Amino acid sequence: MALGRDYDNQDCAMARGLELVGERWTLLIVRDAFYGVRRYSDFLAHLEIPRAVLADRLHTLTESGVLSKEASQGSSRAEYVLTTMGLGLWPTLAALSAWATEFLRDGPAHRYYTHAACGTEMVDRASCPACGVRVPVADIVTGPGPAADRTRTDLVSVAMLQPRRLLEPIR
Amino acid sequence: MALGRDYDNQDCAMARGLELVGERWTLLIVRDAFYGVRRYSDFLAHLEIPRAVLADRLHTLTESGVLSKEASQGSSRAEYVLTTMGLGLWPTLAALSAWATEFLRDGPAHRYYTHAACGTEMVDRASCPACGVRVPVADIVTGPGPAADRTRTDLVSVAMLQPRRLLEPIR
Repeated sequence: MALGRDYDNQDCAMARGLELVGERWTLLIVRDAFYGVRRYSDFLAHLEIPRAVLADRLHTLTESGVLSKEASQGSSRAEYVLTTMGLGLWPTLAALSAWATEFLRDGPAHRYYTHAACGTEMVDRASCPACGVRVPVADIVTGPGPAADRTRTDLVSVAMLQPRRLLEPIR
Repeated sequence: MALGRDYDNQDCAMARGLELVGERWTLLIVRDAFYGVRRYSDFLAHLEIPRAVLADRLHTLTESGVLSKEASQGSSRAEYVLTTMGLGLWPTLAALSAWATEFLRDGPAHRYYTHAACGTEMVDRASCPACGVRVPVADIVTGPGPAADRTRTDLVSVAMLQPRRLLEPIR
């Protein structure tokens, strides 16, 4: 990025974080990884992202340690899996999602997030108001809200029309 | 943005949030607003951002309701002040900052964040581990860490070398 070096003067952790995940598309790729997307072709079909951009972002995320590139079981395809560092991005995504839901929503919800153990909706996408606990990512269930797009036919979009736990592989 | 419309297919609040604040520089401008920066010239000097980019981002943030453009007291200059919607972005910035501190830091801290009431460091930048409460943004104190850049001479950088409450106007 032409502007990349400029963040170096910003003297704070937030700027370093944005250097890594602030590129366009990057956080949506990470979101998809939380949804259980692991394959290049599935990211491509679900995000409708230019191939070169996807390849570039996956390379950066792998190099920086957010994703781990692994051999797929029973296939020669690579899979991109969130590392501990990558899993640590959930609070950021959760906060952004909760903010957008509160301030940008113009109708019924597209998706909901609940605590798997009790089914309570998690408005902040991070803690359960009923149980009073911070919920591990793998115990968060997401499902389609009333405004979910039910017209898309790619594998990821179809899978996301059923309630499913975060991180559970799409295939 | 050329890729802008593509996020429209993404069917989730997070994508709508990223449409608004996911542009390069936008979240750093919002961060500066939390630091108490209000004037165009102060954002410009502190961020070392191209003028056209700053003007574009401030326009978008004002149009969308994240910032409010107000007449400055005792001056003809405009001031950009966080709205309720803008203040709602602190949890996102806090989470990103905490994540970057945990996973990207390569030495001593550049900045610290403490609870004004008790002085305890807030690792998550949002809640006080000693008091066990979520801390209002205006009760968060930030100051320079051991690795803070002490060479810059712009008004904002100099002010940020003293401990100060978030939101307190830089001038």
